Amino acid sequence: MSETVQEIVVGVDELREFVCALYREAGLSEDHAELVAEFQVETDLRGVYSHGTRHAPSYIEQILAGNLKPDPEITVLREGGAYALFDGDNGLGHVASALAMRTAIEKAKSTGIAAAGVRNAGHFGAAACFTMMAADEKMIGFATTNTGGPSVVAPGGADRVVGNNPLSYALPAGEEPPIVLDMACGVSAWGKILTMNMYGQPVPKEWFLGGDGKTVNDPSEGHLMMPAAGPKGYGLAVVMGILAGPLVGGLMACHALQEPSKHFFIAINVSSFTDFHAYAAEVDRGIRTVRASKTVEGVDQVYLPGEIEWRKREEWIENGVPIHVEHLRALAEMGNRLGVEVFW
Amino acid sequence: MSETVQEIVVGVDELREFVCALYREAGLSEDHAELVAEFQVETDLRGVYSHGTRHAPSYIEQILAGNLKPDPEITVLREGGAYALFDGDNGLGHVASALAMRTAIEKAKSTGIAAAGVRNAGHFGAAACFTMMAADEKMIGFATTNTGGPSVVAPGGADRVVGNNPLSYALPAGEEPPIVLDMACGVSAWGKILTMNMYGQPVPKEWFLGGDGKTVNDPSEGHLMMPAAGPKGYGLAVVMGILAGPLVGGLMACHALQEPSKHFFIAINVSSFTDFHAYAAEVDRGIRTVRASKTVEGVDQVYLPGEIEWRKREEWIENGVPIHVEHLRALAEMGNRLGVEVFW
Repeated sequence: MSETVQEIVVGVDELREFVCALYREAGLSEDHAELVAEFQVETDLRGVYSHGTRHAPSYIEQILAGNLKPDPEITVLREGGAYALFDGDNGLGHVASALAMRTAIEKAKSTGIAAAGVRNAGHFGAAACFTMMAADEKMIGFATTNTGGPSVVAPGGADRVVGNNPLSYALPAGEEPPIVLDMACGVSAWGKILTMNMYGQPVPKEWFLGGDGKTVNDPSEGHLMMPAAGPKGYGLAVVMGILAGPLVGGLMACHALQEPSKHFFIAINVSSFTDFHAYAAEVDRGIRTVRASKTVEGVDQVYLPGEIEWRKREEWIENGVPIHVEHLRALAEMGNRLGVEVFW
Repeated sequence: MSETVQEIVVGVDELREFVCALYREAGLSEDHAELVAEFQVETDLRGVYSHGTRHAPSYIEQILAGNLKPDPEITVLREGGAYALFDGDNGLGHVASALAMRTAIEKAKSTGIAAAGVRNAGHFGAAACFTMMAADEKMIGFATTNTGGPSVVAPGGADRVVGNNPLSYALPAGEEPPIVLDMACGVSAWGKILTMNMYGQPVPKEWFLGGDGKTVNDPSEGHLMMPAAGPKGYGLAVVMGILAGPLVGGLMACHALQEPSKHFFIAINVSSFTDFHAYAAEVDRGIRTVRASKTVEGVDQVYLPGEIEWRKREEWIENGVPIHVEHLRALAEMGNRLGVEVFW
């Protein structure tokens, strides 16, 4: 047990095997089950519970209800020098997205940069899973996705007009771990709000707008989320909603209420542009300069994007990952339903 | 004269010709002088005075002082399928950057996406000038640049560690004007703070941190700018500082105090990924849905990124562009120095 009664610390390998078994029982192939379980457990290990194994029961519900295919036949719709577009055949977004990013990486090895899109697929989990694939290959990765219908307001607006699109970049370093940014264009990822509710943390009242145009602090009253930094987050959401929207043959967020997800990826091959070792040495040096910089009172150090997540991973790989009891309860219920034995 | 005594309305063609003459007299070729003047006047026309003709006197000061070359020999350092890297030969950033984006656009016509970097050049003005080049070719453009040394703090930090990098995207539409986002990763572009000072507008006190870690509202007291939306703006600044930094053979912002500017561009060819007409029709429809959406009390409509700027341009092309008298005074002083007659 962890320090609070809310969480139970579970072994990483056991969690991965349990989630993998759930997907197998839901009809995924061994390869696909392993891939999705791996992404989700890695996301938990980064402390991003909102996009990790907590989604497994809801994904599987969708599969069991026939709304998502367990065994999609992913096809290439368009392909050329530095681009490709995939049809996810209404399977989990993770599988088609991993293929898309892998394709972009392979193409970028010779072309310097490449992009790949996915349409007609499910939610892809955490965008960082895919950008980190690029960083592992000494490339800079970019990923975004649409997020169903609109949920974020524009500055001055009183209705949902853009999605709460994430955008992620991962950038390789040398001896230091990659820099990983994974952010929502709204003030917060929706899944993070569920996490805050689960842990009894208050949601700042300026995050939500009521239908009357006044701020409220209960998302259930309005569900009109504010954009991060006003026009900046709103503007980025418009852009991401077009990259993972009309660019790959889909709709704008304001029209996409019932549409399957769309995803978009870019891989930039560092060694096309410069000597990788010189790049990596300078990025390492920059990371160390930033990390050693002056802080305000009460703050121990300045962190690089993704650094807190790398530290959690390092500790939890060793000692197990703390998971909220409600999160485990939902996994257990799905395990009971599919005949997969709970290990905690 | 405009409504306030602070501004004088000047003709767009006359302003362009005057600024072009300044650059010619400073030693730029006719082509380069026209290109820089065009970008700067177009930027004024969008109301972005911080990145338009107001910079001409300071650029020319640098040329006259021998710190920037008026007649750079721009060379290709690396080039391949979908990428290129240019050396700007310490000339104005606009010239090398226009060549870089043009190269990315040409390559993307066949490869689907392409990127180009510039190192060893000056400031490039407004990032949107280059992304709009892509939108004019039915492509999605992306641009970023470094901004000299560090000027923005990290969350919890009390020292400058990242640049106030801009990032811009321009996305073509059909009948509607392109969507144009051009934002700083800090709470504000530095040039916009100068504009606010010029127009006597107060700078919000939460924008700056004093060296003691307390907020102050006088940038001269600290010059430690806060990032937009905390970790999001900070994270984006780290990313942009690597794209327009180590990726193109330069330094991280925290080490780049005296380094020339670096710039980075991407062009994405819409018609590689989807039918352009279907894309454009859906983007147009989305623009109209957003524009017609509900607003809070006192707000007339929701604007798309760049829409306010397109409206200014339309009006000012017709009626002249209002320019602050201090801005004009600096142009006049440079005109007197170079023997270019003032027309206002």
